Amino acid sequence: MYTKAYKEEWNVNHQQIQECIQACIEAMTASNACYSACLEEDHVKEMTECIKLDRECADICRVAITSMQTHSPFMMEICKLCADVCEACAKECDKHPHDHCRKCAEACYRCANLCRNMSA
Amino acid sequence: MYTKAYKEEWNVNHQQIQECIQACIEAMTASNACYSACLEEDHVKEMTECIKLDRECADICRVAITSMQTHSPFMMEICKLCADVCEACAKECDKHPHDHCRKCAEACYRCANLCRNMSA
Amino acid sequence: MYTKAYKEEWNVNHQQIQECIQACIEAMTASNACYSACLEEDHVKEMTECIKLDRECADICRVAITSMQTHSPFMMEICKLCADVCEACAKECDKHPHDHCRKCAEACYRCANLCRNMSA
Amino acid sequence: MYTKAYKEEWNVNHQQIQECIQACIEAMTASNACYSACLEEDHVKEMTECIKLDRECADICRVAITSMQTHSPFMMEICKLCADVCEACAKECDKHPHDHCRKCAEACYRCANLCRNMSA
Repeated sequence: MYTKAYKEEWNVNHQQIQECIQACIEAMTASNACYSACLEEDHVKEMTECIKLDRECADICRVAITSMQTHSPFMMEICKLCADVCEACAKECDKHPHDHCRKCAEACYRCANLCRNMSA
Repeated sequence: MYTKAYKEEWNVNHQQIQECIQACIEAMTASNACYSACLEEDHVKEMTECIKLDRECADICRVAITSMQTHSPFMMEICKLCADVCEACAKECDKHPHDHCRKCAEACYRCANLCRNMSA
Repeated sequence: MYTKAYKEEWNVNHQQIQECIQACIEAMTASNACYSACLEEDHVKEMTECIKLDRECADICRVAITSMQTHSPFMMEICKLCADVCEACAKECDKHPHDHCRKCAEACYRCANLCRNMSA
Repeated sequence: MYTKAYKEEWNVNHQQIQECIQACIEAMTASNACYSACLEEDHVKEMTECIKLDRECADICRVAITSMQTHSPFMMEICKLCADVCEACAKECDKHPHDHCRKCAEACYRCANLCRNMSA
């Protein structure tokens, strides 16, 4: 099932998967950095949605990376989920002026786009 | 977003979430047991799909548990994914006569049903 | 290596492992609940250490559960780590009056004790 | 606790952490690739230890990456664990002639060394 799905059914190529894995690694990295930095902010009360979404985004990116690296037949469904979480995280980051939020939004929008293409 | 989604928008109640978490714990437990046992089987060559799906099922169940325990706004989408993975794992287990596969199929079908209801 | 380590070398029995898995599940559950509740507190600024340790505790408990359920040769080392993280989380929770912190401390101290016994 | 530990107590610098994170990413990538390839081998019966260690190695690398990216006070203990798992995985891979095992061994030995330095 895994091999067949991977080799014959998916309209994605190796290069596209590698770029998506790299985007997930960068979104995970930016989300973890934003999570830690948000918790150090003076106005942490205003950052609680961002903290929650950062954690969830990093977790789902990890799952998406594993699914692509192990040729999961659920890769497309997981990338769709990852796109949704990354987009929500990016939109929340857009509300805040902090440098770590700006960097996280950028990485998450990019990851959302590549994951969306994977799942299309 | 988290709190609003959780309290107002979802048509699920606390009891339903608790039952689904418990079903995910049992599916994760059965998948990990099946994974280990498959790798000890003499005819491991015939069990490779089962091994892969067991690992993936345990991983996704962990994500679903966390999403329900932290009131994630993506809980429904994650439960839908978990239902799909559990069902695939159960169907693969159905092909094999081993006791660990039978137990895993049972736990995974049950989890798939409860996760499907969560995501409906 | 896995099977040999599991069957011959470890001074732990099946009952002890089952109790430790259950304690990890309860510590993970309490940590995730405490994490979500801390982020809703008015004085969230005072809860940031608790939030970080809750997340880390839930993550490490998940790893410990998997290591015990898959008979990992690193089970003892992972349980030692889990004991350390659970204890730190419990001590932080002890500083706060909230009901979710009290419940989390209780579950984490219990888990730390059982994990410590596993790694002894 | 997190910030203090990170800034004052650890004898590691930013550059060292970044290199270790990158080594963990590469070990995780190689382990996932080796895991998938082992399960496709004709002589899969001889690869079962490798399969188990590949999965565990990828999981622990993920935890180590998160601990470094979130400035965990348990970073050093987790890197010690990651070094042990990576070394065991590399040694198992050394027993096999496959190209994916050779690549995995190389990435895991390198990761083990950098993680060992982090935990020293």
